[in-house]
Amino acid sequence: MCRWLAYYGKPIRMDKVLYQGQFSLIDQSLKSRMGAEPTNGDGFGIGWYSTEGTPGVFHSTEPAWNDRNLREISGHIESHLFLAHVRATTGTPVQETNCHPFHYEKWLWMHNGVVGDWLTVKRDLVLAVDPTLYPLIEGTTDSEVLFFLALTLGLEDDPPGAVQRAIGLVEEIGNRHGVKFPFQGTIATTDGERLWAFRYSSEGKSRTLYFSTAYSTLKALYPDDPRLDGFDDESRIVVSEPLGDQAGVWNPVPEASWGVVQPGQDEMHEFRPVAPVAA
Amino acid sequence: MCRWLAYYGKPIRMDKVLYQGQFSLIDQSLKSRMGAEPTNGDGFGIGWYSTEGTPGVFHSTEPAWNDRNLREISGHIESHLFLAHVRATTGTPVQETNCHPFHYEKWLWMHNGVVGDWLTVKRDLVLAVDPTLYPLIEGTTDSEVLFFLALTLGLEDDPPGAVQRAIGLVEEIGNRHGVKFPFQGTIATTDGERLWAFRYSSEGKSRTLYFSTAYSTLKALYPDDPRLDGFDDESRIVVSEPLGDQAGVWNPVPEASWGVVQPGQDEMHEFRPVAPVAA
Amino acid sequence: MCRWLAYYGKPIRMDKVLYQGQFSLIDQSLKSRMGAEPTNGDGFGIGWYSTEGTPGVFHSTEPAWNDRNLREISGHIESHLFLAHVRATTGTPVQETNCHPFHYEKWLWMHNGVVGDWLTVKRDLVLAVDPTLYPLIEGTTDSEVLFFLALTLGLEDDPPGAVQRAIGLVEEIGNRHGVKFPFQGTIATTDGERLWAFRYSSEGKSRTLYFSTAYSTLKALYPDDPRLDGFDDESRIVVSEPLGDQAGVWNPVPEASWGVVQPGQDEMHEFRPVAPVAA
Amino acid sequence: MCRWLAYYGKPIRMDKVLYQGQFSLIDQSLKSRMGAEPTNGDGFGIGWYSTEGTPGVFHSTEPAWNDRNLREISGHIESHLFLAHVRATTGTPVQETNCHPFHYEKWLWMHNGVVGDWLTVKRDLVLAVDPTLYPLIEGTTDSEVLFFLALTLGLEDDPPGAVQRAIGLVEEIGNRHGVKFPFQGTIATTDGERLWAFRYSSEGKSRTLYFSTAYSTLKALYPDDPRLDGFDDESRIVVSEPLGDQAGVWNPVPEASWGVVQPGQDEMHEFRPVAPVAA
Repeated sequence: MCRWLAYYGKPIRMDKVLYQGQFSLIDQSLKSRMGAEPTNGDGFGIGWYSTEGTPGVFHSTEPAWNDRNLREISGHIESHLFLAHVRATTGTPVQETNCHPFHYEKWLWMHNGVVGDWLTVKRDLVLAVDPTLYPLIEGTTDSEVLFFLALTLGLEDDPPGAVQRAIGLVEEIGNRHGVKFPFQGTIATTDGERLWAFRYSSEGKSRTLYFSTAYSTLKALYPDDPRLDGFDDESRIVVSEPLGDQAGVWNPVPEASWGVVQPGQDEMHEFRPVAPVAA
Repeated sequence: MCRWLAYYGKPIRMDKVLYQGQFSLIDQSLKSRMGAEPTNGDGFGIGWYSTEGTPGVFHSTEPAWNDRNLREISGHIESHLFLAHVRATTGTPVQETNCHPFHYEKWLWMHNGVVGDWLTVKRDLVLAVDPTLYPLIEGTTDSEVLFFLALTLGLEDDPPGAVQRAIGLVEEIGNRHGVKFPFQGTIATTDGERLWAFRYSSEGKSRTLYFSTAYSTLKALYPDDPRLDGFDDESRIVVSEPLGDQAGVWNPVPEASWGVVQPGQDEMHEFRPVAPVAA
Repeated sequence: MCRWLAYYGKPIRMDKVLYQGQFSLIDQSLKSRMGAEPTNGDGFGIGWYSTEGTPGVFHSTEPAWNDRNLREISGHIESHLFLAHVRATTGTPVQETNCHPFHYEKWLWMHNGVVGDWLTVKRDLVLAVDPTLYPLIEGTTDSEVLFFLALTLGLEDDPPGAVQRAIGLVEEIGNRHGVKFPFQGTIATTDGERLWAFRYSSEGKSRTLYFSTAYSTLKALYPDDPRLDGFDDESRIVVSEPLGDQAGVWNPVPEASWGVVQPGQDEMHEFRPVAPVAA
Repeated sequence: MCRWLAYYGKPIRMDKVLYQGQFSLIDQSLKSRMGAEPTNGDGFGIGWYSTEGTPGVFHSTEPAWNDRNLREISGHIESHLFLAHVRATTGTPVQETNCHPFHYEKWLWMHNGVVGDWLTVKRDLVLAVDPTLYPLIEGTTDSEVLFFLALTLGLEDDPPGAVQRAIGLVEEIGNRHGVKFPFQGTIATTDGERLWAFRYSSEGKSRTLYFSTAYSTLKALYPDDPRLDGFDDESRIVVSEPLGDQAGVWNPVPEASWGVVQPGQDEMHEFRPVAPVAA
């Protein structure tokens, strides 16, 4: 399916996070260890916040591993909050409008996983998108429609609630069409101030998700590791799979959970899809 | 908006039609004389029938004028019926799934023009597509949705009727949304046996459309022109704008007309949109 | 590095060779079993002979596995002789002019492997190309320069001799620069009438190369296999690695060998680089 | 041929320079008024300096006018010194390695024009590049080889002298091959601290080049124009053709001149090619 990474913290040049580590995200585009398949070569994307309120986005249909523009751009932009995604399509075309992260005003969104039997449920799900948002859907992926469902269901006011309602709706419509496992995956979304991450699947066997250990703990563990120099107490990396094998650095997000990375204390909660109330 | 060409007749190597003439279609990608704008550099596509029943399609997001693959492919395939299209987007993304001709089973479809105020009417028009066809929509253009509307409304059985119903529907939905001129353009479609072409606009000032004079007449006019060697009595070229300035070669299709190129006598008829009957 | 396939024989629709088999070439673009690395996603190319004397070529920088144009084009062209190549770059840019097969007049050429320490020896090798051929070099790969060296050294008159001289020159220039193993790989080249394949490395541990068993033998082995229907006594497939695991189908080319597939009896010979004679 | 723009001055978001003006550089990619041809759609590139010493570069083979990544990237990066180039190829392939600006360590280089009869003189010019620099040539354009000739002839120490020597060499080698007009064009190059621009042609009818009037003068002329808000006394824009028609803003660089934009007083001098001394 895909692999992704989200960074929150002290402003850092993006390439220092994207290309570093024994198993960096860019390496994972060529050979991931924990993905549904090893190769994630069907395009990529990055989205970052700089001083502007709205994020910048760079999408490409090329594999990330040899992309020179990605290396240049990530090597010349510092950001305190950015998302990166390498894609393995589950059937929809390889095109920039199908590359994550998707954006809407100050929001970014990316997903690893699948809406089960997408072409069967697509029409019903698209119809559930707010008609004023509908024209903004630019690609043809399940992931982007999920984003617009979450926006329809209140993402801007209550991100965890909106995602739980969106996936509740996906499950209800999937069930109605006889789809065995309507949703699978992990999601990251951000408004530029906080970063939410989700791990859930109808099957109860969700794609992996990890978050990095707090900086102070890492610094105590590895006082001399120069890679920690760019980080601080607010720094957190959330990833589909660990960027390295060092003990104590990567912590699995529990099955059916969501978390938020934010100024001060980060949080982790149980994720429960919320089915729509019958009209 | 765009420029297109359709060829029907004696099998011929495609490049001999695409690249020939003082103002060939490929030249028109760089500088058309009669288009809404001179440059049609937002991708291109060709669709052709060979011995297989289903057509082959080649799409690219690059401008046609310098595309080496187009020159190679068109220079090595003979076809008795093919469509070619150079695109100037009216706003939708430059991506292969937005390149014409679109295909569905043995059918091809291409369009020059616009559904007025597309993002306003898009949702209603997409909803009118047969739900079993809906999942096959791959891009985000007005032109492709129009194709699926025509398929929904009987293209396979009665092409002129289906297109008149589809555009009647576009006009009704456009009117409902206060769109002044809901449809503009020319269309070519084929099932591999006959070729239909349409010229119509709600405004009554449609994009230009031309068809080539019958071979026997051309041969009488220009008995020594070697370019006629590849053609025969069944050969006909339909184009957005003439490929050259020679007298007697290119004939304008009248405003609000449709024609069919077929074995034996070709035909031309009046085009009248058919509004849907209120349920 | 790369994977490739060459077909010679009864005209066949190209996709029937490219996409068939448990481990088809297109599958090998995503996960090869015997390549220097599993993924060959840095572009691809096909070259084919039709009724024209000169071959057609289609190159793309996208991975082959999801490329729609490749499926369409190979699915609509029959050919009696074609080459296909999926690329894993050893450092040179991912661009169409670096995609194999390379072509010059009626000749095609493709290579899996590497000229050792390419950037060190490149200038000397490029200088050895005939100055009248030099301007025709369009990309920046070792493989293309090797093609132009072979052309310089007589490919059109004596293909095996020219390739042995070209690699002899590569070895001499490599040795002069202290390159331990100046050449590694397999090569296919054709003039549209015969197909030559080469396997050699300075190290004596060359990339794998296989050829298919004669049709009559295969037919005796697998009388009911429908995949044999498209072939005849002249049919031969040469590949970097087998397309399947069936016993008796794929035969390794011995280390340091070259073979020719041609009308009548095919041949296999020892490959011996020929060092240039000192002036 | 091409159109380009160079900005030097107060740090500014790049899109504010690239997309602004009645005839912005991005508009010029679709329809330039003073170019050798109106369309410059064969790829584009930008190069910028940020806090890092080395510049970032973004290249694309797509036309600039509809490129979303260009809009995003230029809309999220501030720079005090950047180059932008929209390409119309004079024959060499449309690929990222042929897109300007070219870079080498802290240097950027771009060119509008042509080395006359490029394929005839290419080999001799490439041979004149320092063998240690030769492997760094990545594309196949005249413009990039000219950059490496200038580097070979001292660009890092004496930019105007090196460019005069490089073009002197181009003229001598061109003359030797009977090329009537060996060089034509304008060049911009920078080390991140100063910006040099050149206008020259063997024919004496060089491509146009303009520089913007000093900020203080512009501010006096147009005290209320909000577009001036982003600039200061050090700001200078150098362009192939004016970005607008306002009086007093754009000043032509005289035929056969070079200038330097730098802290303090900018300068303009006569350009005289320096032929190589016979060995």
